[in-house]
Formats: sequence, C-alpha cells, structure tokens
Amino acid sequence: MASVFSSAQVAGGPRSHSKILDAARCVLSEQGYPALTIEAVAAAAGVGKSTIYRWWPRKEALVADALAEVFRVDEIPDLGDTHAELRYAVDMTIDNYANEDMAASLPALAAGLLPHPELMSQFREAFLFRKRENIAVALRRAIQRGDLPDDLDTDLVQDVWAGTILYRRLMTGSPLDADLAEHLVHLVTNTPTRRTDECA
Amino acid sequence: MASVFSSAQVAGGPRSHSKILDAARCVLSEQGYPALTIEAVAAAAGVGKSTIYRWWPRKEALVADALAEVFRVDEIPDLGDTHAELRYAVDMTIDNYANEDMAASLPALAAGLLPHPELMSQFREAFLFRKRENIAVALRRAIQRGDLPDDLDTDLVQDVWAGTILYRRLMTGSPLDADLAEHLVHLVTNTPTRRTDECA
Repeated sequence: MASVFSSAQVAGGPRSHSKILDAARCVLSEQGYPALTIEAVAAAAGVGKSTIYRWWPRKEALVADALAEVFRVDEIPDLGDTHAELRYAVDMTIDNYANEDMAASLPALAAGLLPHPELMSQFREAFLFRKRENIAVALRRAIQRGDLPDDLDTDLVQDVWAGTILYRRLMTGSPLDADLAEHLVHLVTNTPTRRTDECA
Repeated sequence: MASVFSSAQVAGGPRSHSKILDAARCVLSEQGYPALTIEAVAAAAGVGKSTIYRWWPRKEALVADALAEVFRVDEIPDLGDTHAELRYAVDMTIDNYANEDMAASLPALAAGLLPHPELMSQFREAFLFRKRENIAVALRRAIQRGDLPDDLDTDLVQDVWAGTILYRRLMTGSPLDADLAEHLVHLVTNTPTRRTDECA
C-alpha cells in the first residue's frame, strides 16, 4: 500500500525512500519498536539522519509507512460464494497480524500516536480505511445475495474480526488458525459460536 | 488486584511499595508509557532508584503492577438473569479499556513483553486469568440455565469481547457505549448483529 506519511514522491528521491523503508523494517525486526531510533535506520540505509527527517517528522510516521507497505488491503474477489469471501477477508486479517513485526509494532505504534490526532488520522487512513472499505464491499455483496441481513453493521463486523485476531496475537497468545477463522466467519453468518473437537 | 511482579509483601516495605505504584500511575498519566523512566518514578515517589529496582527488575514489570492494581477483575454476581450478567461482564471490560492510561499503556506493554516469555506469563496472570475465570463462571451459569449452548467456547467469547473493545479504543476510536455493549452481548446469545437506529 502507498506511503501516506511522507511526500517523497514529489520530493524526488524514490530510491533512498524505498531503501529507508526497507532499513526501517529490518531494524524493527532486529531491535523491536521501542528500541528503534532514526539513527539506527539511517545507518542501516546508508543515508544521513537529515534525509530521513526531511520525509518523516518522527519515528512513528516512519514506522507507520514501513509497516503500511507490507500490510495487506486486498480487494476481496467476487467468488460467488459468501462463505469463501468472508473467509478470504478473515484470512487476510490473520495474515496481517501473524506477521511478527506487525503484531509487536502496530499496537505500540497506535498507542504512541493516540496523543497526536493528526498523525493518528493518517495512521487510520493507512491501516484501516482501505482495508475496511474493501471488506465492506464483500459484505455488501453478501447482503445483496440475501446471505446476510440487510441492516448488518459492517463496521462492527470488522472490529470484531480484527479485534479478536489482534487480541489473541498480543494478549492471550492463542493460535490464529483455520479453526479461529471459521469461528469468526460463523459469528457473522449467525451460526452459533461452538467449540470444535480439536479445541475441547 | 494483587501485585504479581514484585515480592514486596515479603521484602517488607508496603508503604514505599504502594507509594511507588501511585507514582508510576501518575508519571504514566503525565508522560505516557514510552517516555516513562524508573528515574522519573523514583523522583515522584521520593525514593531512590535502587529501591524500585529491588522490587521490579524492569520498567515493564513496574508498569504492569501499577496498572494491575486498577484493572477490574470482579466476580460476576449471580443475578439470576443471563443478559444482565453478560452485560455486567462486557461493561467491566469496557470500563477497563475506557481508562485512558490503560488503553495507551496496556498494548504497548504487552508488545514490549512479547520477547520476554517469563514476564509475559506473569502479565497474562495479572491481566487475563482471574478476569477470564470470573467471566467464565458467569458463562457456565448461563449454560446451566439453558440460555447458552453447552459447548460454548468461553475463551473465544472473551477474546471477541475484549478484542473488539480494545481494537475500537486503540485503532478506530469508535465509541465504547451501551450500544456496543448490547451488540457484544447479543453476539453470544446469537441474536443477529444488527445496526441500531442511532448508528445508521
């Protein structure tokens, strides 16, 4: 997904820009979000600190862009099959949070942005809006097929999906497996939430 | 809830111990989790850094204890009414994350603990196990009343509840209101997830 926190496209330094984002992800993997510094990213990218500061006013913005590039926001294909499309959406969400750097960084990043409304709204644009709109399209398709109620709250569905996945990854450490994906799909199609044999 | 990250009870310094935790919450409110240092907490509590390090090996442990003291883990009273008891459990969870310090610190803290399995398991003990067990008791009561299916996955229910609430607080910024609470209760009692008038 496109970079939303910098104006590198117009500033005209696409090669350094992409090298810096690669370096940021690399430092993130090795040192974690709290320990990441602009200095370390500059050293890893082989550029000066001022080059980074020219594009990203602060660490949060740089990390957000670096993660946004690897965050999946696929359009959900029209498969003519509501279950398959919802499962696609849930699997994409699991895929995003199964990424170790993402799981460790995204919540810390969001918490760090909460006091900065301007950056927080760019963050939401990068990580929420496009993915949410793409999934909402699939949900509305399912409503038109008559497979979901026409007053379905498509925002709540996505809060439940992404929230449960993030919470498991971050807090409980429970697996993000096919069993969870099926439960999350069934929650929306209104099949009861039941324990399967392998979880008993 | 009790302190799980220190051995202050036996080390015999209950007054300083509680003063340090108060100071930690105060510094957290003023400066946020990333900026909090042991030095600042020591200064605010009027103790030496070594006093803090005697009880808490690192910042994460200190903050976890400070937050654990204000994290609600109520036993859910037997109200003879499944809806009322589930609503009690959801409201308690909302209450925990509506707290600004908690919302901003808990995810960053969890992310910081992920690389330290020993501290992570203490963290889960403080923030998850007792609350989860207390809510599970209420869910099992509802199952015995015949109000919920007897193979209900009580862990998944709680992941869905806490996950949705945390995600809204941290990522989307959507309100944690009575409308959300009712939706989350209905998700478990298998009423369809529908948009109410005031959200339309």
